[in-house]
Amino acid sequence: MTETQTRPERKALPDEAAGAEASKVLKVALLGCGTVGSQVARILLEDGDALAARSGARLELAGIAVRSLDSKRDVDLPRELLTDDAEALVDSADLVVELMGGIEPARSLILRAIRKGASVVTGNKALLAQDGPALFEEADRNNAELSFEAAVAGAIPIIRPIRESLSGDRITRVLGIVNGTTNYILDQMDTTGAAFADALAEAQRLGYAEADPTADVEGHDAAAKAALLATLAFHTPVSLDDVRCQGIANVTAEDIAAAKESGFVIKLLAIAELVRTGDGGAATEGTSVRVHPTLLPREHPLAAVRGAYNAVFVEAENAGQLMFYGAGAGGRPTASAVMGDLVSTARRAVAGAPGRTDTATRRLPMVGVEGIFTSYSIGLEVADQPGVLSRVASVFAEHGVSIEAMRQTLEGGAPGSGTGRAELRFVTHRATEQALAETVADIKNLDAVESVTSVLRVEGV
Amino acid sequence: MTETQTRPERKALPDEAAGAEASKVLKVALLGCGTVGSQVARILLEDGDALAARSGARLELAGIAVRSLDSKRDVDLPRELLTDDAEALVDSADLVVELMGGIEPARSLILRAIRKGASVVTGNKALLAQDGPALFEEADRNNAELSFEAAVAGAIPIIRPIRESLSGDRITRVLGIVNGTTNYILDQMDTTGAAFADALAEAQRLGYAEADPTADVEGHDAAAKAALLATLAFHTPVSLDDVRCQGIANVTAEDIAAAKESGFVIKLLAIAELVRTGDGGAATEGTSVRVHPTLLPREHPLAAVRGAYNAVFVEAENAGQLMFYGAGAGGRPTASAVMGDLVSTARRAVAGAPGRTDTATRRLPMVGVEGIFTSYSIGLEVADQPGVLSRVASVFAEHGVSIEAMRQTLEGGAPGSGTGRAELRFVTHRATEQALAETVADIKNLDAVESVTSVLRVEGV
Repeated sequence: MTETQTRPERKALPDEAAGAEASKVLKVALLGCGTVGSQVARILLEDGDALAARSGARLELAGIAVRSLDSKRDVDLPRELLTDDAEALVDSADLVVELMGGIEPARSLILRAIRKGASVVTGNKALLAQDGPALFEEADRNNAELSFEAAVAGAIPIIRPIRESLSGDRITRVLGIVNGTTNYILDQMDTTGAAFADALAEAQRLGYAEADPTADVEGHDAAAKAALLATLAFHTPVSLDDVRCQGIANVTAEDIAAAKESGFVIKLLAIAELVRTGDGGAATEGTSVRVHPTLLPREHPLAAVRGAYNAVFVEAENAGQLMFYGAGAGGRPTASAVMGDLVSTARRAVAGAPGRTDTATRRLPMVGVEGIFTSYSIGLEVADQPGVLSRVASVFAEHGVSIEAMRQTLEGGAPGSGTGRAELRFVTHRATEQALAETVADIKNLDAVESVTSVLRVEGV
Repeated sequence: MTETQTRPERKALPDEAAGAEASKVLKVALLGCGTVGSQVARILLEDGDALAARSGARLELAGIAVRSLDSKRDVDLPRELLTDDAEALVDSADLVVELMGGIEPARSLILRAIRKGASVVTGNKALLAQDGPALFEEADRNNAELSFEAAVAGAIPIIRPIRESLSGDRITRVLGIVNGTTNYILDQMDTTGAAFADALAEAQRLGYAEADPTADVEGHDAAAKAALLATLAFHTPVSLDDVRCQGIANVTAEDIAAAKESGFVIKLLAIAELVRTGDGGAATEGTSVRVHPTLLPREHPLAAVRGAYNAVFVEAENAGQLMFYGAGAGGRPTASAVMGDLVSTARRAVAGAPGRTDTATRRLPMVGVEGIFTSYSIGLEVADQPGVLSRVASVFAEHGVSIEAMRQTLEGGAPGSGTGRAELRFVTHRATEQALAETVADIKNLDAVESVTSVLRVEGV
């Protein structure tokens, strides 16, 4: 065949968006009209032609369910779209966007939609971390689709890349900065030397942290996202209860300063790992999912994620190291993720074949503390006496924990005079959490040790 | 409804991958068995169960088309899979993976597959940059799917995020480091102060650059990727001919050093922009797509992309700034992208509804040099005479190009003595390329100006 024979002809394209031509209409029910919901409504009303051109169907905003009509008097949206009868709205719709948050009535409404075969787009991480795998199965059973890009890391496309782009690879680890509030606080502490309480107050003043910052600061928000990421990355159901979680409230300015001196930065990471235990023919796989403040080398790509930004770092056997970076919250960025799901869902609805959610293809066991190998940074206050270091070092040795680096700072009195105190900071080689816990317990019992000031995990080394 | 009533039941999952249960089989034809193809074959042969569990069908490697059976004597794959009859292999397959590269016979084989309704996965950026829009339409006409995640930035999921995750947003700009060879060379020059030729030789020694480095160094490889990214980001057909392209061969150690002094790094960027020309009711949209060495502030997320890594930075109206980072080349990373496309395509084939490629929904005009506003860094060698700076500055002023910063370095002779020379480096505010070209031409004609040593564009300021 010659080139001219095989080269296909181009059809003419209109100069204008082809959206006006789409004849099919899909009715969209929007549940919730807060920061994100109101942006989704705006985009649906403003960008109709472009959305229709990309979807193959006109996305008609059928209504917006709000808790109380009175509370939305000031919303700049057509009043006739608002309703307080969410169930009737769901029953009338082809596609449902759930942005109410919380467990109920969000779950009941999502199930109501799914069971009548309507596909759902949600950003509800709390609900998915609790009931995700069961909802996914229910969607598949009913030939409906359940999408949730907005539930993790706001505008950053991470759910679809993990579920689709990496579906032919084997993800071994996910490290995520998935909470902008805590990243802002830790970044402020790192940049200005501020104490935790002051950085939190500043974050609250700027609107990055809520009046009750518990869910962010204690890591619960990140833990819900970690459960979702692990479920998708490892094709196994992981729920919030499976995530071990430690927040940042105990991270001190001294921890940050000591990390900085050693070339590290402290980030709150959501970590999901595929763990191989045993070896040879007896090797089995498991997962470990956890959230905790973590020392990262300053040259690690995640270390450069500043302010309230989010990023997710993925390691896969063939792809190697990948990172996805962007705005992790906010009305417009999160609405962008919702709209991407909505257009993609609409395309498949037009084709008559909703995508399957089918996240779990196996059930991997959760690996306990005895199976996780990590490096640690440990800070101690000790009496400045001869022989203290040797006694501490021998405790590490007894538990098989090998020391990679040590730094001693004297805090008063002549060195070795027995009158001053010293601060010791150790970084260990990789050891099990169990070995470390036993080491720390025994170190605390040494006479010369006044206190263990910090125990922080180290990643990326 | 109470919680217990609405909470769906979980079905039991097998401990093992459910892949063994998949009853449907899809025959995969692999065209090409080079660096990437051999990795794709390995993954298909090794990971059958997991791929089946995720696809819903067993992906059976039906055969591998190679140019000559003799040349593949050493390949560690079952000999009976190899064939030199690519057309017969395509005719026997449900899904086709094209990794031969080049225009022919790749295009004829892809069309052969598409026209019989077989979906195709390809990594062939040269072919897509030349004929992509026509091939996409042909795929849609034949109800086949054409996927190409591997064609841009290797393992980095960027095609799917742009096509799907951002399908409800409006992308305004894409800046990509999409060629690892040139990024390695520029990074070496930046880190070690090496000249271009030495950094290129080092890249060749390490296997990052080919013996004939033209396609990389002159920006042609990046230009093909820029055309593809622009097509997808702006929903308009863009081909290689539409991309203005300048390589890195003329970037000097002095350019890099001067950029460094001013807080910039030089990267070869693929840039695709949505440009609004005119204003008010007469405003029209167009696109500008180009590849050139670019000054970026060191704090820009792309500035931290080191060595042979790739990254794509996307700006969208609602999502804000996003970045995707990872390995841009190599057999295993690129095979990961191919496999992600293959599993996703297989899922849809099982559901009986191939995805549409439908990239272009409109045809935007390309905007000429008169419509693009950019900042520039300009280096001049001038005689060190009183009044030279004032004469140069007045030329800028005549063309309406405003100067943001200036730095003068004396190179010999007493200052102002008229016996030495000086180097002037200007950074301008945003101006049209046309205004700049005219400015540079007039500056060259000034008696006191010996040469214009560099003209580089600046982004991210």
